[in-house]
Amino acid sequence: MTDFNQSCPIPIADYPHILLAHGGGGRLMNQLIERMFRKAFDNPELNHCHDGACLDLPAQRIALTTDSYVVHPLFFPGGDIGSMAVYGTVNDLAMCGALPLYLTAGFIIEEGLPMETLWRVVQSMSHAAREAGVSVVTGDTKVVNHGKGDGLFINTAGVGVLKPGIEIGPRQIREGDAILLNGDIGSHGIAIMARREGLEFETALESDLANLSGLVQELMESHLPIHCMRDLTRGGLASALNEIASTADLTIEIHENQIPVKAAVRGACGLLGLDPLYVANEGRFIIILPEEDAEPCLSILQAHPLGAQAVRIGSVRKKGTAPVELVTPFGLHRILDLLSGEQLPRIC
Amino acid sequence: MTDFNQSCPIPIADYPHILLAHGGGGRLMNQLIERMFRKAFDNPELNHCHDGACLDLPAQRIALTTDSYVVHPLFFPGGDIGSMAVYGTVNDLAMCGALPLYLTAGFIIEEGLPMETLWRVVQSMSHAAREAGVSVVTGDTKVVNHGKGDGLFINTAGVGVLKPGIEIGPRQIREGDAILLNGDIGSHGIAIMARREGLEFETALESDLANLSGLVQELMESHLPIHCMRDLTRGGLASALNEIASTADLTIEIHENQIPVKAAVRGACGLLGLDPLYVANEGRFIIILPEEDAEPCLSILQAHPLGAQAVRIGSVRKKGTAPVELVTPFGLHRILDLLSGEQLPRIC
Repeated sequence: MTDFNQSCPIPIADYPHILLAHGGGGRLMNQLIERMFRKAFDNPELNHCHDGACLDLPAQRIALTTDSYVVHPLFFPGGDIGSMAVYGTVNDLAMCGALPLYLTAGFIIEEGLPMETLWRVVQSMSHAAREAGVSVVTGDTKVVNHGKGDGLFINTAGVGVLKPGIEIGPRQIREGDAILLNGDIGSHGIAIMARREGLEFETALESDLANLSGLVQELMESHLPIHCMRDLTRGGLASALNEIASTADLTIEIHENQIPVKAAVRGACGLLGLDPLYVANEGRFIIILPEEDAEPCLSILQAHPLGAQAVRIGSVRKKGTAPVELVTPFGLHRILDLLSGEQLPRIC
Repeated sequence: MTDFNQSCPIPIADYPHILLAHGGGGRLMNQLIERMFRKAFDNPELNHCHDGACLDLPAQRIALTTDSYVVHPLFFPGGDIGSMAVYGTVNDLAMCGALPLYLTAGFIIEEGLPMETLWRVVQSMSHAAREAGVSVVTGDTKVVNHGKGDGLFINTAGVGVLKPGIEIGPRQIREGDAILLNGDIGSHGIAIMARREGLEFETALESDLANLSGLVQELMESHLPIHCMRDLTRGGLASALNEIASTADLTIEIHENQIPVKAAVRGACGLLGLDPLYVANEGRFIIILPEEDAEPCLSILQAHPLGAQAVRIGSVRKKGTAPVELVTPFGLHRILDLLSGEQLPRIC
């Protein structure tokens, strides 16, 4: 595990802030890469052939994914842009049923970013990568002029390997399938908004940001016939269900009173005029699988710290009037649509 | 080939500019992805399993690379950020000796970017990907607030496959090796600077941006014992040679009068106070291989349009006082160091 108190390997007295030259291909960029990035992400593959990493995979079937992270602020209760850039991409690989192995890291830094801030983020990425069992094997550093960025954006792409026969995705879901959720929703988006808007709540709210790969590997090893998994990031539960149901050309029905939402999240959503069903999460996902496999799957989820509060929230039906229907606590059916506007900018 | 005159698939009358909601995970983002990105990058793997692409590779040894593109302006003589985001990453894979197959695409868009601009870039990426024989199989779209970005940044990561036994990299170079260059240097950086600064030259200067993969595949098929290849992007020829020589713990000697530089580039460099040896290229690369294989390699290069002016520029020596020495036209030896400052910001 990375020691978070390690002092910054670039002398802060000489370079308190990132300069344009740190992205210019010369001596300062070389120092930044050699002293900071190579030190933090140390592994045998890192840039061995320099314009890229050469990797021997244990299989020929892979999952490939990418996400850019533009979260504001860079540090928030429960995480930061660095841990998010690792876990978010690792989770996307896990949702394909893959074992995450390798990440790339692309930094777009605004001129003037404190060097210490970059170092804190890089240490956090390094720690998260170790925790998730992945290696950052190649990267890129760009610096944009002051006022042409926002501190730091990070892109990660991920490669994971897939066992033969694994087919997980929206097109695999079937009428009658059960839908499970690994815990309460909305904490990530609300923790970010609260920090950004300077809101204080009685109960401290933390992001649910987590590495889901360990839990997903347990599910994969159970050989349960999982049809689809999806982490509930931007757009939250409602958007994920809409995308899956639309792709599958089926309808998903969920029950509002079965969806766990913390009281503090519910309260904050009321204050901010947000619907927790659309708020982003970074450690929550749904699993869609045959009805008869729902109970064994719930047992596996509930035995894991990241699924202790796992619940069944609904099922897949034949195509109805809308992709997603919400059954309210009063038994009314309401269409749960995609949002037209912007709910929460820059939460990931 | 993509028809560059196709009209924008998002109605410009309704959405003349990118809104924050185009990155919000709701209806507008969905439309942008389905109508623009999926249409332009159409291929069977694209997001089939949604949180990532699932791919069957023809081999287990891969090259993995990433670059973020922050070039300013977005369009320049000879290219644009879209073609650059494809060719740049394809070229990095080629430099590892890999056959490029798949790309990811991460867009970080500034709120307010004209929709038509995004569409032009996406069409250019699509065209470049077809030309280079790669598929854009997964992506991500983020929108940042107006004033927190600079129009458009693009990250691409690339996956290519490597034949068994291929080991290309700085650590493979040996004393006595010859160093070849596929053409004249400096056009890319100068074309960008000229456009940015509003400079006019008698001769129109275009970026050398090109897909090097076809030429590199020919070299690979020749079975010449290539030790190292490197494209001469940020920091130019001088920085690439410095990085290679330092990694290999050897000295590289090059002859100034053997390095082709267009008169217009030389003139502009004089005006702007730049040294063409440090100016970025996007279609130039060096090949380092045993002395006795230099001539056959030059013949292959010179038979290809992207190597018509290929030359031998120097050789690898045992470690001397500096990683790179330049022999001037007068026979003097001068140390060619990494630059300490910033020469040309945001040229890639």
